[in-house]
Amino acid sequence: MNKIEHIGIAVKDLEKANLLYAKLFGEPHYKIEEVKSESVKTSFFKVGHNKIELLEATDDHSAIAKFIERKGEGIHHIAFDVLDIEEEVKRLQNEGFVVLNEIPKKGADNKLVVFLHPKSTNGVLIELCQEID
Amino acid sequence: MNKIEHIGIAVKDLEKANLLYAKLFGEPHYKIEEVKSESVKTSFFKVGHNKIELLEATDDHSAIAKFIERKGEGIHHIAFDVLDIEEEVKRLQNEGFVVLNEIPKKGADNKLVVFLHPKSTNGVLIELCQEID
Repeated sequence: MNKIEHIGIAVKDLEKANLLYAKLFGEPHYKIEEVKSESVKTSFFKVGHNKIELLEATDDHSAIAKFIERKGEGIHHIAFDVLDIEEEVKRLQNEGFVVLNEIPKKGADNKLVVFLHPKSTNGVLIELCQEID
Repeated sequence: MNKIEHIGIAVKDLEKANLLYAKLFGEPHYKIEEVKSESVKTSFFKVGHNKIELLEATDDHSAIAKFIERKGEGIHHIAFDVLDIEEEVKRLQNEGFVVLNEIPKKGADNKLVVFLHPKSTNGVLIELCQEID
């Protein structure tokens, strides 16, 4: 775990949330990206060395739609930057953490991502991410 | 908003969570601090330029106890470092954000803190914090 790469926030309306978070941070999002495989549309803000990712579901089957239905809008996950995601997955499995997808998948922002099950991390959905070369 | 100062995570049992997060990050917490005015016991981990704060309620009236009762364990707030907390509160109020405590109060880790109401920030509890000189 190198650093916090970003914090993901589930929102109902990305366009409205982009305006709100631009007011909060004093500057607008720097990119929008749709991840079709995850049924989400995302926007990114820079804050110091980190990013904030807003996520809107693009259909009802999206994990973000289900999260909002269950818990309402709010903080969805913390993503940690790792150098070697496969090694890190092995290390964490050996420590007893439950991995949601053992094989890294392509996420937003040119990253390979793996999620840890919140039941093994005090209710926190943790994403590991590695920049794709 | 300079940077993300820390992410606060509500846990039921700080001792157990400290062991778990030490495995996650590969190194232990570097301090424990009780904030009596908020009825919480906290521990801090360093991750890159940021911190992770675990929070355990010390009585049933604590905001952390109420949060866990309502939502379960999990991510409780994001704290942003600001240089002049009073100026930042004024700026955000002018932008329409709802402030929970207009007068900064003493939080953990030698900080003055102000919280924004999650209803004005897509369900995210945001803490502004300024280091006390």
